[in-house]
Amino acid sequence: MVNIPPRIITLLTDFGLQDVYVGVMKGAIATINPMLRTIDLTHQIPPQNILAARFALMNAFAYFPSNTVYLAVVDPGVGSNRRGVAISLKDGFLVGPDNGIFSGILALYPAIEAVELTNSQYWLSAAPSTTFHGRDIFAPVAAHLASGVSLEALGTKIEPNELIKVDLPPYQHLETEIIGLIQYIDIFGNLITNIPGKAVEEKTWSAVVDDLVIASGETYSSVKEGEVVALVGSHGWVEIAVNGGNAKIKLQKNWGDWIRIKL
Amino acid sequence: MVNIPPRIITLLTDFGLQDVYVGVMKGAIATINPMLRTIDLTHQIPPQNILAARFALMNAFAYFPSNTVYLAVVDPGVGSNRRGVAISLKDGFLVGPDNGIFSGILALYPAIEAVELTNSQYWLSAAPSTTFHGRDIFAPVAAHLASGVSLEALGTKIEPNELIKVDLPPYQHLETEIIGLIQYIDIFGNLITNIPGKAVEEKTWSAVVDDLVIASGETYSSVKEGEVVALVGSHGWVEIAVNGGNAKIKLQKNWGDWIRIKL
Amino acid sequence: MVNIPPRIITLLTDFGLQDVYVGVMKGAIATINPMLRTIDLTHQIPPQNILAARFALMNAFAYFPSNTVYLAVVDPGVGSNRRGVAISLKDGFLVGPDNGIFSGILALYPAIEAVELTNSQYWLSAAPSTTFHGRDIFAPVAAHLASGVSLEALGTKIEPNELIKVDLPPYQHLETEIIGLIQYIDIFGNLITNIPGKAVEEKTWSAVVDDLVIASGETYSSVKEGEVVALVGSHGWVEIAVNGGNAKIKLQKNWGDWIRIKL
Repeated sequence: MVNIPPRIITLLTDFGLQDVYVGVMKGAIATINPMLRTIDLTHQIPPQNILAARFALMNAFAYFPSNTVYLAVVDPGVGSNRRGVAISLKDGFLVGPDNGIFSGILALYPAIEAVELTNSQYWLSAAPSTTFHGRDIFAPVAAHLASGVSLEALGTKIEPNELIKVDLPPYQHLETEIIGLIQYIDIFGNLITNIPGKAVEEKTWSAVVDDLVIASGETYSSVKEGEVVALVGSHGWVEIAVNGGNAKIKLQKNWGDWIRIKL
Repeated sequence: MVNIPPRIITLLTDFGLQDVYVGVMKGAIATINPMLRTIDLTHQIPPQNILAARFALMNAFAYFPSNTVYLAVVDPGVGSNRRGVAISLKDGFLVGPDNGIFSGILALYPAIEAVELTNSQYWLSAAPSTTFHGRDIFAPVAAHLASGVSLEALGTKIEPNELIKVDLPPYQHLETEIIGLIQYIDIFGNLITNIPGKAVEEKTWSAVVDDLVIASGETYSSVKEGEVVALVGSHGWVEIAVNGGNAKIKLQKNWGDWIRIKL
Repeated sequence: MVNIPPRIITLLTDFGLQDVYVGVMKGAIATINPMLRTIDLTHQIPPQNILAARFALMNAFAYFPSNTVYLAVVDPGVGSNRRGVAISLKDGFLVGPDNGIFSGILALYPAIEAVELTNSQYWLSAAPSTTFHGRDIFAPVAAHLASGVSLEALGTKIEPNELIKVDLPPYQHLETEIIGLIQYIDIFGNLITNIPGKAVEEKTWSAVVDDLVIASGETYSSVKEGEVVALVGSHGWVEIAVNGGNAKIKLQKNWGDWIRIKL
């Protein structure tokens, strides 16, 4: 007998951890197939923040086994006529609302096929609630998909290029500078831009925030405690950090603010 | 060889996630039987809030596989003479302090048998701490129960109807109105009443909060962003929400406050 | 066929749960060996607080199966020349930065062997990021170790007694009093000292905080709600608590403050 490793479903929501919403989604999955394994990406996406969900999913995608199902529910339009979708990629599946949360992944790893979730046979019941599709539709669909049900069985085929896209304005690479913006601020207050590390690779560069010129370094401790440093962070983006401190607070910057790189 | 799916133990506490209390309970379970699986319901029940634990457990119960063990530790009386109990139901087991946290489940799904946890053979040691029965008694008992130990072996039989009940005042269904109260407020600030959805089923209804009349809708996005809506929420209770906002803050309401439904 | 129970890797970090850092470490582990199981100790160690990590690890260690791998990443020196290490004990393995976070465990359970993590064959890639060794080095190494790779294969042998130690000043046991300090404050505001319970065993004792004499009791509810009690807590240390309240706030005490026991 071959010991088949359990398939993984990753979970990302904006439900927080105070209520039982996330636990109940895992219960719905375990009821369909108790051999499946769930791994939490995060449940603390800022409420209804599609851009934050997009960033988090994009940066997590590469680090899981092939065939992982990425279940994501940040869903301001739940109960309206927004579509629920399942999408197959070369190395995994995406399940959630069609509202752009998967845009970041799909820009890097193209969709192979996509379906609108119309087959209620794979839902918790044929009469889902209007407010909690995570439990009633998306978690059961993810569990069936991870258990071997084909994508086609889950609903009506749609063109992958018709999926909703939510994208940031691209960074601009000029001759002596790069202009980008803050696409995410992590819990440490690190300001993560939309400028990929390869844009500054093997170059001498510094970041400019308002009137402050910030030298680039290799790591947080390249500067003294409390000082600001610009570096290529662990997700591969140019970021601005304070060694042992919080760059968001120190520099008074926020999501979407512009950042300039001087080459 | 049949591949037996692992039994599930769900965990609910008010321990929070800052300390290692929850991790240590899972360690105690894994030490007894590493094949068991744990699923967190929540560890952020407001400290010692038995009513919140009762609500959370009641709403999660239906969504897990049959034979799941529901381990719950919200335990203001730990170390006093309050009883520890294990209870069998048609579709699962309950393990925790006898202080009313299971009242909500037991009102919907009657107990079959109950025991007081007196057999220290199934505890972490015969001399448990006086402050952390979650680790020393309840987690080990849940692990043994999920591994096939019989309920009877765990202690002295007690009458299920002698278990401590903590119940809310019932809602009142009058001719043209229903009067209930807020039994839970979730992380989004949604005000969840103790009025079941079926009380307003197929009726025209609105909610009245102080002087404000709130029209009923199908879902959050039935109203414009920032507006108040009354609806039947995903757990099956009448609830009052603000689309994209926080009803608790907007309406200045709290746990236990009265809500009126006009039919 | 023998059903081999999955090996456990416990995780402790200061990464919080807002970002995907922890999820991605679990993805890196599952990619190497999907049969491994992870259990979170906590991810809410106060940022870069090595003493808090040391305390949490020390108190969790005894409660997991033998051969558990304890992966811990509180790592202010990431990217500098601090060493990464793996350590074998009689009942488990430790993996993380060599900065003292394991001092508490090692004072109780001596190291057998230790290696500096120099063999990049067991890393996510031979070119790890400078800021996220949790994902790029420590999680992969823990996964390989839990899958049967030998400690020696992971890098260069080092003397266990050369590992960095971070220790608190010891408590002082005088004739009629014991002087210790607060080594941890849990989420309930309980003040946990560095005085072991056995120092007051079978003695009449009270705690003195500033001018307040606090009688010792068996458990939190040994005193009325809102009153202060001194007791031996569940981790085996003398602690000061308020029944149903918060001793940190009530007594205005903090980490490292001195506490006196009168015998």
